[in-house]
Amino acid sequence: MWLTFRSKLNKLTPAQVIVTYYLLAVTVATILLSLPVAHKPGVDWNFIDALFTSVSAVSVTGLTVVSTADTFSTTGVFLLIFVLQFGGIGVMAVGTFFWLLVGKKIGLKERQLIMTDQNQTNLSGLVNLLKQILLLIIIIEIIGGLTLGVYFLSYYSTWQEALIHGLFASVSATTNAGFDITGQSLIPFKHDYFVQFITIILITMGAIGFPVLIETKDFLMNSKRSKHHFSLFTKITTLTFACLLVFGTLMIIILEYNHFFSGMVWHESFFYALFQSASTRSGGLSTMNVAEFSTSTLLVLSGLMFIGASPSSVGGGIRTTTFALNLLFLFHFSRGNQTIKIFRREIHEQDIIKSLVVTIVATLICFTSVVILTLTESHSLIEIIFEVASAFGTTGLSLGITSELSTIGKCVIMILMFIGRVGILSFLFMIGGKEKAANYHYPKERVIIG
Amino acid sequence: MWLTFRSKLNKLTPAQVIVTYYLLAVTVATILLSLPVAHKPGVDWNFIDALFTSVSAVSVTGLTVVSTADTFSTTGVFLLIFVLQFGGIGVMAVGTFFWLLVGKKIGLKERQLIMTDQNQTNLSGLVNLLKQILLLIIIIEIIGGLTLGVYFLSYYSTWQEALIHGLFASVSATTNAGFDITGQSLIPFKHDYFVQFITIILITMGAIGFPVLIETKDFLMNSKRSKHHFSLFTKITTLTFACLLVFGTLMIIILEYNHFFSGMVWHESFFYALFQSASTRSGGLSTMNVAEFSTSTLLVLSGLMFIGASPSSVGGGIRTTTFALNLLFLFHFSRGNQTIKIFRREIHEQDIIKSLVVTIVATLICFTSVVILTLTESHSLIEIIFEVASAFGTTGLSLGITSELSTIGKCVIMILMFIGRVGILSFLFMIGGKEKAANYHYPKERVIIG
Ligand SMILES: [K+]
Ligand SMILES: [K+]
Repeated sequence: MWLTFRSKLNKLTPAQVIVTYYLLAVTVATILLSLPVAHKPGVDWNFIDALFTSVSAVSVTGLTVVSTADTFSTTGVFLLIFVLQFGGIGVMAVGTFFWLLVGKKIGLKERQLIMTDQNQTNLSGLVNLLKQILLLIIIIEIIGGLTLGVYFLSYYSTWQEALIHGLFASVSATTNAGFDITGQSLIPFKHDYFVQFITIILITMGAIGFPVLIETKDFLMNSKRSKHHFSLFTKITTLTFACLLVFGTLMIIILEYNHFFSGMVWHESFFYALFQSASTRSGGLSTMNVAEFSTSTLLVLSGLMFIGASPSSVGGGIRTTTFALNLLFLFHFSRGNQTIKIFRREIHEQDIIKSLVVTIVATLICFTSVVILTLTESHSLIEIIFEVASAFGTTGLSLGITSELSTIGKCVIMILMFIGRVGILSFLFMIGGKEKAANYHYPKERVIIG
Repeated sequence: MWLTFRSKLNKLTPAQVIVTYYLLAVTVATILLSLPVAHKPGVDWNFIDALFTSVSAVSVTGLTVVSTADTFSTTGVFLLIFVLQFGGIGVMAVGTFFWLLVGKKIGLKERQLIMTDQNQTNLSGLVNLLKQILLLIIIIEIIGGLTLGVYFLSYYSTWQEALIHGLFASVSATTNAGFDITGQSLIPFKHDYFVQFITIILITMGAIGFPVLIETKDFLMNSKRSKHHFSLFTKITTLTFACLLVFGTLMIIILEYNHFFSGMVWHESFFYALFQSASTRSGGLSTMNVAEFSTSTLLVLSGLMFIGASPSSVGGGIRTTTFALNLLFLFHFSRGNQTIKIFRREIHEQDIIKSLVVTIVATLICFTSVVILTLTESHSLIEIIFEVASAFGTTGLSLGITSELSTIGKCVIMILMFIGRVGILSFLFMIGGKEKAANYHYPKERVIIG
């Protein structure tokens, strides 16, 4: 039976594996979180809310229709953390695995990770990769947890309490869960720049993508660093990450200068802007009530959430590389070039087309979702746009409308979290079906565009 | 001097010619519409409003910051009509001219229109084409004017009055001007389905693109009709036009069923939906106050205006062919195909990439405009989104905020009308500069997308 499963797995397309993993994880999560032992006494628990919470947890989005603090028992919270880890890390592992499969053809170093011998990639490779990712993420979580735990000694009376809160904050940040178990997100730490700084670093570790982490680890452990070669993917996504962080921070500062930040000292404004900007990658934590931002800022944040995190990370959205390739290609195209040259490499034409397709499909899906929600919900347009962007980017920031959504509204947001997490390409190939080889051609004819 | 001009014109890129024509026309229009004789006595006329009116007229958008009825004298209205004709037809002519230049390489029939001998296309070809287009449009306007004029005998007491109103209504519809000289658009004819029907046909004539008109003319005049070959462009844009009309009508009917249409008889709802749907292509006339529609409907209409009309027409937006190629490619791509097969032809890969780029650039421009306007204007988000889509699509429908825009707001809307009218590709190549031949290559490397 195990062999049958293995041979079946080898026949599945990457998109099918990711989608299957995701749906399986949601089913398990729904069952786990519906166990009576997971709830506080007297909690009213229904199927749609259970499903919503599970989808939100597996996609590590963090949008919630029920108050996590009021609903889940201590056991429930631990089950939730368990789901978050496997939601975040699992999809990340499957995604990375298939990227490395592609890498086989172009000879990347990292493929050794998943290969049992030189010409075969298989299930044991995937298991091996999953172990590697789990190990790395758990190490990051423990280091983050200890750092925060020791620091929290000034907040809590006992070291046990400080350590537990530190560890939870670390896991919540690293998996980009955004689940709000204190009921206040990071608002109590709005003036504690150390906690914010560590949280930003942990969020980034989770959202920047596993290939970046593993390449950086190799770089740091390699004695001959000059010979180390970072992949183009790592360079592009890291640069994009940095640019988006700076852009978001600047935009928030400029747009809120005479509004939310009016009368604040510079470092207060700066850290509000920096943290909220970093959070839009996929973190979903906040040091303030984002509803206090102006419509302009909320639209910019929606755009940033729509872009989302790196591929093969715990985040969603169209992904940083997609956005970067879009911008790079638009720039090159307007200068009459057909390719992108960056970091002394050329981008594969196929990847350019993919990035354009992903962006347009994502825009269409989000636009359609907004139209449906304006019909079914009684909330304002900006609240709906923000919620849609947050769900698609699996960010989890909200203007507070999630728990008031209608059943149709909940379904729309669930579908968005699902699509955002598995990625537009996986989603497209899931609904598109198998490739058919074109064995005939028609004459080509030009049409007028734009 | 004429020869110098001719040789310079031949060196300009299509984008430069279209942009130059547009800017020249706006300058002339600003001067013409600022002549004292064009205004009613005591009118307060300032530069920004003059510029806005000119940009709106040359791009045949029809968004107005001043009441046309209260501002312009009879002479002024005639000058305005003159500007509309040259704005609408001029950009259409230049666009068609350069499309036919491309056609030279693939042997389209229509290129004979602009060729003085078999291997040369030049200024006299452009002039010849402009004459052909002017002639065809004026014939359409006169037929439409006479039809409406005779019909208007039942509305007006004298035949002169009826004929003048008919002619004006016909010109206004055919050029897709959307300029509102009665102060009421077509609301007085909200129950006159004949007027609406004729108007829809005239709007479509202007917005469906000159190549379609000329090919249809050839088809009708050709005795051997079976041998006639419609271009792929004509087939795609006509089909898209029909689909968008039906889609828009259905969406309005569904979304307003329990709202604006509640309690109406079916033909009343149907004609409201049909007319407003047709108007979003670029017409900009309306038989009702569109502000009465729900947010959902307004978003759908915004999407339809964003798509806009055919290339080489009097309309704007990303254009019907762009939208069609987007959808077709997304569908084919998700099934693993790299090309689009339609009407027994294959779409050129270059055109697919163009269509994707146009859509993304347009989305970025409109999104940025909305963010800026939420900052500078105090109107609601849906009013701003609708205004931006209307300006970019050069449609001219509005929820009534145009005249209340701040100076920055007016500038943003003017830029949108300009970009929408000259088209994203012309705009891109205008700011992008000259093509540089790539004489070196880097190794290609894959990156992870979406
Ligand atoms: K999240
Ligand atoms: K118009």
